[in-house]
Amino acid sequence: MDLKKAIYSRRSVRRYGAGKIQRKEILDLIDAAIHAPSACDIQGWRFIVVDDPRLIEELVERGSASFIKNTSQGILVLYDCRTDNEEYMDYLQSAAAGIQNILLTAHSAGIGACWVCHLPNKKEIKGMFNIPPQYDPVAYISLGYSLGEVTDRPRKYEAGEIVSYNKFEFKSETREVNALKVKRTGREIYYKLPLPVRRLFRPLVDIFEKKF
Amino acid sequence: MDLKKAIYSRRSVRRYGAGKIQRKEILDLIDAAIHAPSACDIQGWRFIVVDDPRLIEELVERGSASFIKNTSQGILVLYDCRTDNEEYMDYLQSAAAGIQNILLTAHSAGIGACWVCHLPNKKEIKGMFNIPPQYDPVAYISLGYSLGEVTDRPRKYEAGEIVSYNKFEFKSETREVNALKVKRTGREIYYKLPLPVRRLFRPLVDIFEKKF
Repeated sequence: MDLKKAIYSRRSVRRYGAGKIQRKEILDLIDAAIHAPSACDIQGWRFIVVDDPRLIEELVERGSASFIKNTSQGILVLYDCRTDNEEYMDYLQSAAAGIQNILLTAHSAGIGACWVCHLPNKKEIKGMFNIPPQYDPVAYISLGYSLGEVTDRPRKYEAGEIVSYNKFEFKSETREVNALKVKRTGREIYYKLPLPVRRLFRPLVDIFEKKF
Repeated sequence: MDLKKAIYSRRSVRRYGAGKIQRKEILDLIDAAIHAPSACDIQGWRFIVVDDPRLIEELVERGSASFIKNTSQGILVLYDCRTDNEEYMDYLQSAAAGIQNILLTAHSAGIGACWVCHLPNKKEIKGMFNIPPQYDPVAYISLGYSLGEVTDRPRKYEAGEIVSYNKFEFKSETREVNALKVKRTGREIYYKLPLPVRRLFRPLVDIFEKKF
């Protein structure tokens, strides 16, 4: 697929057709990922393909985005978190560059994908997958064959509205700061609850989960 | 350009030909960036094109990657940092997804680019460009017309070596932890020094700057 078409027609896809993505196809996605740039050329990516339904169920129970309960596989993206550049979190940026390559490559291969950061605590994920301290779970990418239902979604701004020269010169729209504080605190408390209690609150949390 | 070719033949480019990238071309890069996915569909990108030589000089003096002193323009990428998901820093990931779209699009248009996280403190950058608190500088992308010298660079691992299924199962190579601690502490101290003192240390710091 042409690069421009891939970038402009890609969408987050949360509903997938039947059938599992072949291992060969997953390797192609990973190979595209590791051709992204990486800070200091560390190339510190690791990928755990999750296709055990019990693990997917556990992810949801622990607080992952609920739509993944209807999916049958995904990729947990890890990156070596030993960086000296903690202010810019360069390792997170490298991981994300790889993820974007996966999303574009998946789309061009007829595979639907969704980038998921709505996940349980890193500590719990590390425990679930036996991840050593020097690797950080960055995000999860749910995958499945595309149903071909994807439609374009308009952008909030045109490019010209969010570019300025040599100085920040934008009207800054006000988002509700108090609502954000409440949401952030709620999120922190929810993910600190013991698992059985968290499970009880799950239906309530699902109501607030952003779906689009 | 074909997506696959763009992903596999893209390289970080630090030396550029003469001539400035046209504003129309820069808008095309930004437009590709904002077609990346963004956490909760916030689309919180802002871009400051830096083409004032004094600002580029100041960035270097304050501790940016030294190669940018030989460049004549770049894009400072900002993103709305008001997130409730502080554990996964989803806003940083969205910013990085946009940057990867810029890098691929630039490459396909014959524009060389380099993703730079080696930058002065965020606080200083915010001061330099008059950036309000709700936007975070994420990275800088240096830009220039490509000299066409790019060659492939082999990856450290093959895809199959860094994928496992349902569990972390990799030999974890040991990187020198003490060296990292020294580097991290050195970096922290350097960026806390008052600017005139930092300037004095600059030649020493340049020796340790990774160039590849």
